[in-house]
Amino acid sequence: MTQYKIPVIPGDGIGPEIIAEGRKVIDAAGEKFGFDVNWVEFPHGADHYLETGELISEDSLKELSGYKGIFLGSIGDDRIAPGVLEKGILLAARFYFDQYVNLRPIKLLDGVWCPIKDKTPADIDFTVVRENTEDFYIGIGGRAKSGVSKDVLEVHRTLYNAKFGLDIETDSEEIGYQIGMISKEGTQRVINYAFDLAEGSDKHVSSVDKANVLSDIYGFWREEFNAVAAKHPDVKTDFNFVDAITMWFVKNPEWFDVVVTPNMFGDIITDLGAMVQGGLGLAPGGNINPEGTSMFEPIHGSAPKYKGQNKVNPIATIWAGAMLIEQMGEKEAADAIVSAIETNISEAKVQTYDMGGSAGTSDVGDDIARIVLGK
Amino acid sequence: MTQYKIPVIPGDGIGPEIIAEGRKVIDAAGEKFGFDVNWVEFPHGADHYLETGELISEDSLKELSGYKGIFLGSIGDDRIAPGVLEKGILLAARFYFDQYVNLRPIKLLDGVWCPIKDKTPADIDFTVVRENTEDFYIGIGGRAKSGVSKDVLEVHRTLYNAKFGLDIETDSEEIGYQIGMISKEGTQRVINYAFDLAEGSDKHVSSVDKANVLSDIYGFWREEFNAVAAKHPDVKTDFNFVDAITMWFVKNPEWFDVVVTPNMFGDIITDLGAMVQGGLGLAPGGNINPEGTSMFEPIHGSAPKYKGQNKVNPIATIWAGAMLIEQMGEKEAADAIVSAIETNISEAKVQTYDMGGSAGTSDVGDDIARIVLGK
Ligand SMILES: CC(C)[C@H](C(=O)O)[C@@H](O)C(=O)O
Ligand SMILES: CC(C)[C@H](C(=O)O)[C@@H](O)C(=O)O
Repeated sequence: MTQYKIPVIPGDGIGPEIIAEGRKVIDAAGEKFGFDVNWVEFPHGADHYLETGELISEDSLKELSGYKGIFLGSIGDDRIAPGVLEKGILLAARFYFDQYVNLRPIKLLDGVWCPIKDKTPADIDFTVVRENTEDFYIGIGGRAKSGVSKDVLEVHRTLYNAKFGLDIETDSEEIGYQIGMISKEGTQRVINYAFDLAEGSDKHVSSVDKANVLSDIYGFWREEFNAVAAKHPDVKTDFNFVDAITMWFVKNPEWFDVVVTPNMFGDIITDLGAMVQGGLGLAPGGNINPEGTSMFEPIHGSAPKYKGQNKVNPIATIWAGAMLIEQMGEKEAADAIVSAIETNISEAKVQTYDMGGSAGTSDVGDDIARIVLGK
Repeated sequence: MTQYKIPVIPGDGIGPEIIAEGRKVIDAAGEKFGFDVNWVEFPHGADHYLETGELISEDSLKELSGYKGIFLGSIGDDRIAPGVLEKGILLAARFYFDQYVNLRPIKLLDGVWCPIKDKTPADIDFTVVRENTEDFYIGIGGRAKSGVSKDVLEVHRTLYNAKFGLDIETDSEEIGYQIGMISKEGTQRVINYAFDLAEGSDKHVSSVDKANVLSDIYGFWREEFNAVAAKHPDVKTDFNFVDAITMWFVKNPEWFDVVVTPNMFGDIITDLGAMVQGGLGLAPGGNINPEGTSMFEPIHGSAPKYKGQNKVNPIATIWAGAMLIEQMGEKEAADAIVSAIETNISEAKVQTYDMGGSAGTSDVGDDIARIVLGK
């Protein structure tokens, strides 16, 4: 029997409840397909931070880097200022493990209620490849006060005003600023990943940017996209401004096969995508480093108000678990989990409130595990 | 008879066609409500740029600043690199005239097909107040090559790496970067504008940010929002991460009354809002400087492929025209135009292709003008 050791970070809020169901279903798949998982729990999250002051230590990160895939619940807690846990744990892990692809399938499963009119599962079935380590997520920014004339902003302001004949003030009173950056290497590798998904099929690759306004950063993105596209002459491509693509996700989701996007825009459009595929309760994501340590999670947050109520939908997490074991090499078991999710949904007997049912989180996990086991 | 002088920039692509209908309807409203408009045409756009090399000159801007409201068609042309015309004309005007509010009503009119299930005009009726002069729209950014160690990015990288114990490389090979900034004054004035819209009603104000990740710029936004909110203790408020609000726009648009947002997120969510209200052909916007020169436009682009075909929907432009004359003080005439748009739509006889009809652009303008005149 194949043995896997998989680290798991249940995290905050509803995290422990949904992770329990994700583990349950993977364990069932192991029973069926002949592997056994040794789950290694990590305590990181709000409670651990409040007790110890530690977000995630270098030691924990080093230890985790010995594994191929991490199973993550959700991070975030109302007792702590927005960003502290998210940046200190979730983003720290994405960056530390260099998980440069955030892979988010947008797929309307059969039997799921779609909020968009006239769309069927055949219309909503594409993949978003979100860059996951650069862009405006690098945490570089600050504040400037009046009179910091040697500050870079002042230098740029002067150039900008000269270019456009305008007069932008940086020293009005006080400012907050943020810097995003993307590198050639960081941009090319994620775009390459997207093209690899499309290569050899009739899928096309759609790029997202806002090169008409944030021209420095996303003009660069577009150049790198074109450079990679040139190496894949058989794959069709198109460009989408981020504002426009939010419309097409609603109106014409059937246009898309593989969408590749800078980090921040990817964050925004995948939440929209999650809604289009039936809601956050159904949307999984993988933070992937193809050669290193990947991490799989539901894309929803920790929903503190539902904590401990056995109420929320575990399907996003169970689906993320399927992506996790696929990454471990258990493709057949992964497919069986996704198919069990589909059966659970089409039977429509054991469902949580968000899908119109009255079952608990654990009932849904039980039901999907049962289906995986063929019982 | 009141006389107005209104500058008009038809612009590119379908701009001239839709502006012709907007003017036609305002002229009809003038006939009915006793005012007369002297339209002053400005040539700015792609052709003018290709012929003369001029985007929009300081002289033109100075001349335009003598007026209260500008009527703008659309800017953008495939012959010219993305961003050149948009930044050189549209954004230059927004900045030059300090039009710090971009006002975008999201309203599903009776009889309009909504792509979202189970929503009626009562559910989709709110206003987005988009900041319009700061944030990532200031055009500050650039490229850095390997070895620019004195560059600000290097300084920040060091700080960032020290803070998170990570190792972000800025000198991998080459990078593109972009800086956004918001000022206390610039942030407060637009948030004030949003609160003024809600004050004295039961409307609440929703703030949009991504303070959990872009903490420097949007943590600052949140502080300023709280400072303004403290002066309006009777107005309820809430905070929305930009990724989450795209979901609520689709699932629960009835939650919103007044949404105030930084510039870039406002760009994204108002395109989504336009789709939710029935499509870009129906979405108007006002770039407003309450004490200076404002500018009204459809929020859609120049749609080059439809140019000269008398095909596209002029309603967004006609509606923007109503906002324009409301700004001039002609509230009754503005209301009459909006109500004529509603009549045209509910009669469903003279409609363009996007609304399921086969009428031309000018037919729709004729029909709405007729209704305004009570014929
Ligand atoms: C929690 C937050 C930091 C995170 C992000 O912005 O990436 C989340 O929204 C996501 O999409 O995984
Ligand atoms: C054309 C473009 C520069 C503009 C913007 O990004 O503001 C447009 O998308 C809009 O929303 O008015």
